[in-house]
Amino acid sequence: MEFSNVNWSLYAIIDKSFLGGRPIKQIAEALLEGGVGVIQLRDKTGDIRAFYDDALALKQVAAYHQAPFIVNDRADVAIAADADGVHVGQEDLPVPVVKALLGKDKIIGVSVHDLQEFERMAGHDPTYFGVGTIYKTATKSERNATGTAIIKQVRARTDKPIVAIGGIDVANAAPVMEAGADGVAVISALLCAPDVRTEAEAFIRTIQQTLKKKRPI
Amino acid sequence: MEFSNVNWSLYAIIDKSFLGGRPIKQIAEALLEGGVGVIQLRDKTGDIRAFYDDALALKQVAAYHQAPFIVNDRADVAIAADADGVHVGQEDLPVPVVKALLGKDKIIGVSVHDLQEFERMAGHDPTYFGVGTIYKTATKSERNATGTAIIKQVRARTDKPIVAIGGIDVANAAPVMEAGADGVAVISALLCAPDVRTEAEAFIRTIQQTLKKKRPI
Repeated sequence: MEFSNVNWSLYAIIDKSFLGGRPIKQIAEALLEGGVGVIQLRDKTGDIRAFYDDALALKQVAAYHQAPFIVNDRADVAIAADADGVHVGQEDLPVPVVKALLGKDKIIGVSVHDLQEFERMAGHDPTYFGVGTIYKTATKSERNATGTAIIKQVRARTDKPIVAIGGIDVANAAPVMEAGADGVAVISALLCAPDVRTEAEAFIRTIQQTLKKKRPI
Repeated sequence: MEFSNVNWSLYAIIDKSFLGGRPIKQIAEALLEGGVGVIQLRDKTGDIRAFYDDALALKQVAAYHQAPFIVNDRADVAIAADADGVHVGQEDLPVPVVKALLGKDKIIGVSVHDLQEFERMAGHDPTYFGVGTIYKTATKSERNATGTAIIKQVRARTDKPIVAIGGIDVANAAPVMEAGADGVAVISALLCAPDVRTEAEAFIRTIQQTLKKKRPI
């Protein structure tokens, strides 16, 4: 897969606890058909066997759609499932360690919540930055929302892809993109929507309109 | 390290939540000085950065004492910290996957709770079997205790090392060894003891007496 050509606009994080028993492979399929460009699998429950099985399934679906498949935190699962990358937070394995495990051709994403974290992580040369928490969110209730200011600050300091995260939905995605993000990472606004494909399409419309405004012909 | 020569008698599982803030490296040192033959690091809290740092420290201490250092569940952390092996439960990565990640020279341990699980795991040729839950334990309160019968059953079916686990302390270790275990895996009885080194020494005395009884001169 050619990772210089990733479509970061809409980055779906699939967390099984948001699926309510729906089959994960079909949900991923619907998201990709709706325009999602990157899929990440995340699990905080600890059943790694099920997580690994899900990773194998999602890798297959994502590859079919030529979208990168990224595993949250677990470099071992990523390697075993031949994922295209790993996303790490501040409390996960250090970026150089993940790079050494995965090899240099894989995507390494890092979460940064403020400029200090950004500066620290930038030195490790990750593939992209997940920046947030932009808006208040039920998923990470312990975090203070930063608003879009952090996107502008990080944008001024890097040309790498910035994926904004935290409470982003169709209604509030535009200011995030206008602040300089390359895309939005979404969990609940996609997975809790009545139809995930329709919701992904709505995101894509909003994002494309914002990009048009930013680059007038 | 020569893994044909492991002393399985006393296998200490170090879980930070049992340390009450005591420094992990010194605790490991005291355990090894007291006669512990194998050290495992386990973490269920999810702070993988701290887990990785602990793994680096324990690898160093264990290597100094020529004891294998084993990481619970996380093959990525094991590789990154150059651990001597990984221990997996039924809900962790499959043994063949862990073997492929670690290479054939590493220790792979598996937890089995009954004969069905034993038969299923035996086919994957692990290095040793963690067998239990032998006695009732606060650590895995959801499990029914099997008593020592399961040790006898597994012993009749394998020559590989059997490490009994679950509520084992100095007072109840003897019947476990007499049933055919090669050693006992211990968390709370070691880590919650007033002096971990003294407690390890008491375990070793009991285990050696049992072994003498089993093999009279």
